[in-house]
Amino acid sequence: MKVLALGAHPDDIEIFMFGTLAACAALGAELAFAIATDGAKGGKVDPAALVKARREEATEAAGLLGVTPRFLDFPDGALVADAALIGALKALISEVQPDLAITHAPNDYHGDHRALSDALRIAASFAVPVLHADTLGGTGFSPTHYVDISAHADLKAKAIRSHRSQDPERFVDGARTLNAFRARQCNGAPGALAEAFRFEPVFPFADIRELLPPAPPMRPVTVSTKTVS
Amino acid sequence: MKVLALGAHPDDIEIFMFGTLAACAALGAELAFAIATDGAKGGKVDPAALVKARREEATEAAGLLGVTPRFLDFPDGALVADAALIGALKALISEVQPDLAITHAPNDYHGDHRALSDALRIAASFAVPVLHADTLGGTGFSPTHYVDISAHADLKAKAIRSHRSQDPERFVDGARTLNAFRARQCNGAPGALAEAFRFEPVFPFADIRELLPPAPPMRPVTVSTKTVS
Amino acid sequence: MKVLALGAHPDDIEIFMFGTLAACAALGAELAFAIATDGAKGGKVDPAALVKARREEATEAAGLLGVTPRFLDFPDGALVADAALIGALKALISEVQPDLAITHAPNDYHGDHRALSDALRIAASFAVPVLHADTLGGTGFSPTHYVDISAHADLKAKAIRSHRSQDPERFVDGARTLNAFRARQCNGAPGALAEAFRFEPVFPFADIRELLPPAPPMRPVTVSTKTVS
Amino acid sequence: MKVLALGAHPDDIEIFMFGTLAACAALGAELAFAIATDGAKGGKVDPAALVKARREEATEAAGLLGVTPRFLDFPDGALVADAALIGALKALISEVQPDLAITHAPNDYHGDHRALSDALRIAASFAVPVLHADTLGGTGFSPTHYVDISAHADLKAKAIRSHRSQDPERFVDGARTLNAFRARQCNGAPGALAEAFRFEPVFPFADIRELLPPAPPMRPVTVSTKTVS
Amino acid sequence: MKVLALGAHPDDIEIFMFGTLAACAALGAELAFAIATDGAKGGKVDPAALVKARREEATEAAGLLGVTPRFLDFPDGALVADAALIGALKALISEVQPDLAITHAPNDYHGDHRALSDALRIAASFAVPVLHADTLGGTGFSPTHYVDISAHADLKAKAIRSHRSQDPERFVDGARTLNAFRARQCNGAPGALAEAFRFEPVFPFADIRELLPPAPPMRPVTVSTKTVS
Amino acid sequence: MKVLALGAHPDDIEIFMFGTLAACAALGAELAFAIATDGAKGGKVDPAALVKARREEATEAAGLLGVTPRFLDFPDGALVADAALIGALKALISEVQPDLAITHAPNDYHGDHRALSDALRIAASFAVPVLHADTLGGTGFSPTHYVDISAHADLKAKAIRSHRSQDPERFVDGARTLNAFRARQCNGAPGALAEAFRFEPVFPFADIRELLPPAPPMRPVTVSTKTVS
Repeated sequence: MKVLALGAHPDDIEIFMFGTLAACAALGAELAFAIATDGAKGGKVDPAALVKARREEATEAAGLLGVTPRFLDFPDGALVADAALIGALKALISEVQPDLAITHAPNDYHGDHRALSDALRIAASFAVPVLHADTLGGTGFSPTHYVDISAHADLKAKAIRSHRSQDPERFVDGARTLNAFRARQCNGAPGALAEAFRFEPVFPFADIRELLPPAPPMRPVTVSTKTVS
Repeated sequence: MKVLALGAHPDDIEIFMFGTLAACAALGAELAFAIATDGAKGGKVDPAALVKARREEATEAAGLLGVTPRFLDFPDGALVADAALIGALKALISEVQPDLAITHAPNDYHGDHRALSDALRIAASFAVPVLHADTLGGTGFSPTHYVDISAHADLKAKAIRSHRSQDPERFVDGARTLNAFRARQCNGAPGALAEAFRFEPVFPFADIRELLPPAPPMRPVTVSTKTVS
Repeated sequence: MKVLALGAHPDDIEIFMFGTLAACAALGAELAFAIATDGAKGGKVDPAALVKARREEATEAAGLLGVTPRFLDFPDGALVADAALIGALKALISEVQPDLAITHAPNDYHGDHRALSDALRIAASFAVPVLHADTLGGTGFSPTHYVDISAHADLKAKAIRSHRSQDPERFVDGARTLNAFRARQCNGAPGALAEAFRFEPVFPFADIRELLPPAPPMRPVTVSTKTVS
Repeated sequence: MKVLALGAHPDDIEIFMFGTLAACAALGAELAFAIATDGAKGGKVDPAALVKARREEATEAAGLLGVTPRFLDFPDGALVADAALIGALKALISEVQPDLAITHAPNDYHGDHRALSDALRIAASFAVPVLHADTLGGTGFSPTHYVDISAHADLKAKAIRSHRSQDPERFVDGARTLNAFRARQCNGAPGALAEAFRFEPVFPFADIRELLPPAPPMRPVTVSTKTVS
Repeated sequence: MKVLALGAHPDDIEIFMFGTLAACAALGAELAFAIATDGAKGGKVDPAALVKARREEATEAAGLLGVTPRFLDFPDGALVADAALIGALKALISEVQPDLAITHAPNDYHGDHRALSDALRIAASFAVPVLHADTLGGTGFSPTHYVDISAHADLKAKAIRSHRSQDPERFVDGARTLNAFRARQCNGAPGALAEAFRFEPVFPFADIRELLPPAPPMRPVTVSTKTVS
Repeated sequence: MKVLALGAHPDDIEIFMFGTLAACAALGAELAFAIATDGAKGGKVDPAALVKARREEATEAAGLLGVTPRFLDFPDGALVADAALIGALKALISEVQPDLAITHAPNDYHGDHRALSDALRIAASFAVPVLHADTLGGTGFSPTHYVDISAHADLKAKAIRSHRSQDPERFVDGARTLNAFRARQCNGAPGALAEAFRFEPVFPFADIRELLPPAPPMRPVTVSTKTVS
């Protein structure tokens, strides 16, 4: 079992799917990370210095799961689902031979996220099923699968915080809020966290339940136990 | 402008739509509340005592907006979209003459919520547009409209807390979490709260924007301003 | 873990979901069967005799999994999602306390199937998640979950054949064709069979993967190994 | 080939589907009309007199196609998809034995239209495919089938005008505007009129093209032939 | 408040969204127009002459609202959502800094419209919300927002008529028919006109009501006031 | 009447739509075939030899319907919906002038299929309606139109078998299983076969029924005629 995570920018894997990847690893899965753009636009500093810093940050974060990320080095802010990107993704899939690929949803907020998602739709062909991660803030997203990441919350926060150049606390907070919300949609126990995904059946991948770590455990809804004064 | 809020149980209006109703009132709208069931099953105490207590609690909560709620008194836990309920809702609409009705979504978690929503679909006919409130936890819900309730958060919490028999802090927390999440989906400012709704166009109600208080103000997404060390 | 199967007529559980129930049982789940109508219209013979015969047939079929079915005895061909049916289903759920309920899809071919599905939508409330079985012939149905029933095919055929009054070979054939087709959609191995289902997330049931037996194992698509002459 | 048209009120068949029924008749189909309510609320006059007048008007309109309408006589403004209505519709279908049933869409503007549509969904069972007519004004409606009624426009107008008690010119105008619009969606020739419908595949009715008269003929889109001065 | 209108050809802004732009301007919004192609294929005359004539026509039409249009000058009939187009649109957005962008729907009739819509989906990223205009004839389009353009009908007609090379009366007629139809879907007053749009929530743009001029005012549906003779 | 079939690889037309094309021809339609890629990756042999062999196979198969296929010769496994492919398709449509184009669905299993479908969406513009063929195994596909190919089953099998390099019996079997399943969804007679398609209305093509050969004839569902012993 091998999972390929693809993010448009150096910190996207950490923000959108790191908990699930940690859960996969805990279950024995092998992981591969690929980062589509160089991240040169993620700040108001010298682009070359930023690219170098973010590469180090991404390497540090991935290292928390023992992974050395691949950098595709397309220019930040200019990703297009064209032959170059699709070809690079096909080569990546051919090399990695993943059982599952996880990337951004096609309607996520950032044009680069959308382009990467579009390109992977073609590149994945029938070689690997593609799972779409929750959008930023969950806006316009209807999940079909949830993964309990409660046991991996600290590691996810640490991974996001590796991205020091990105003012990461806002993403730690944003991700925790989103993950807490997704856990609540499953009626998860207090403190539970979950990442949510969407999967569309495509031959030969009609049901990929076995590829994903479990959802938060089911819990009954309870009524008030208050007495009436 | 008159808004009719319909909840299945005595505390549903408060949990699911009170902030929006407060915002409507602040804009000068007249409000009417109707509670479909007697709430006899919302606890492990004597049903008759519970019905009485919850009626008082609902009256107190509605009173925060100067409203005297109507009680339709159908049995809790047994709501069905049949002629009796539909007839009662038609009579209510005929009497109140609302410009907008807000109730539960047809796929909300509780069978009573679903039945009330189904019944109102028929009863509303072409007399009043029906807006569906967010489901419990937002599960399975895709909003089309958001209402900024930041200015009414304290009143909403107070209204929910009026329902002392229901162990209300869990609902105060749940509602705040959901409302904070919905505000984030609009990129609302820190601390912003929003209630989310879904509307399906039906003649003669194709666009009901004018009936709803405003969404959270638009805010740009910003990139990191960190320097690279 | 307890699964409640609900069929509109005495042979519906067998045709639409028996393989999955057998797989659940093999994993240790407890099963309960409920049959909504008396089946009096399933033939051109004396209704009372038919009802008696079909009750025996259903009892025999359920017995293959060690289950004694419950008969709700509503009149065949006249099922309506009204207070009587919804009430009966609520009582059933309250008694059985299932972790999962499986019934017909709301757009299945038979009016009784649709009515039962509609009624269960209300009756299930937040007590139990409802899974919808494949429609007859799969017409108009988009599955979200698949269950591998290859190991239970003979038992399913035997269960259907228990319904001697119903000219059962046509249903054995129909079910096998549908189940073979659903397995192919997963690229199942030659001879694999699967039953397909649809689930819509509703609080507190956002992801019910853990409640279902596994899908057919994933298999890669292969290209031709023929030589070119 | 027999077509059963079902309207909630005495003039609904004429407004929403009369052109298609005329086209069916012109192709040799047998027609049957059923009117669910007595129409007592369609005006501000004495209900009994109105019921009588509308019955005569409906009889006159249906007579234009040689049809004697059936009156189910449920109370106007109070239609509910309950056992009484569903039972009446089942009896009607059993008697008429139609190959196709046409009625209102489940999201049409009038509660009675919605209830009739809901009830027919159950009552039709697997006996007859149900086609949903365009909603009032086409609001919230996505057609799947179009029928060219250009040759039957005058008869449709005459049929609507038979409903003298209903101030019918507004409906003649409204229907013509809608029908002209639907023809334009097919790029129909100038003056073409079409009625639009929606069909959802349900076993055994997956493709009902053969049951419907033809759509407006296809016409290419042309570019300007103007010269540039 | 600044609105960027993007049309594939020199007359598209006028036909599909000019009324709304006029309404925006009347409310004080600043406008910017961009035309993606040179329009060389919109006729059977010399392409270079046509390009020149259409540029003048578009300039004249935009001038009615005090706008000087930008011409992106991609070849007519060959628009593709590739890096060149997406890059040009990103540059445009970066320069104009709009609060709202309006363009064609992704399923509009013309390949160039589809390509422009696809490209803007990527280019808009999280910088600006994208609103999709009604398709030609409204075919396959489900609006979510309506804008009352009754007060701007003459100006819209004049703008379309500026495109003398395009045989514009057919578009004046087509647009008025569509706009009258959309107003009727809102039960607009006699003579009312509306343009219809579709918006899909994407972070940070979950509810953009405040960016759009109002819909036609709500009006009740009335029953007949005829007496029965 | 002219139908243009477009397949991504040399055997796709035969597998996915040959029966319908044979039915079109039998009704007098003229046919044109276009194959987007050279098929160099459909085996483990020398690509150049494979390309040559597959070209001959495709020519032989198309010849069964008297058609000489066009080869667009894009590289197998690398199809992208870019200007080159879209331009080639536009040129093809301009030359062939078809009344209907049939190609793969945008969510079919193979990246090349998806890319061809995406490209044709732009290239078809308003010149020709595009019909999407069933996906491989029908996974994730909701048909809107069915075509009875029972009378053309042998010819379809023969056409698939022309592709000797592709180990064709597996596709003969797969196609027959899918086609039998689709016929069953229409309750087709025993032995009936159907191909299924999906069409989305786009101006000026709102209803294309007249362009398609008939669906399997409608047949009633029958109940058991067994006696009860």
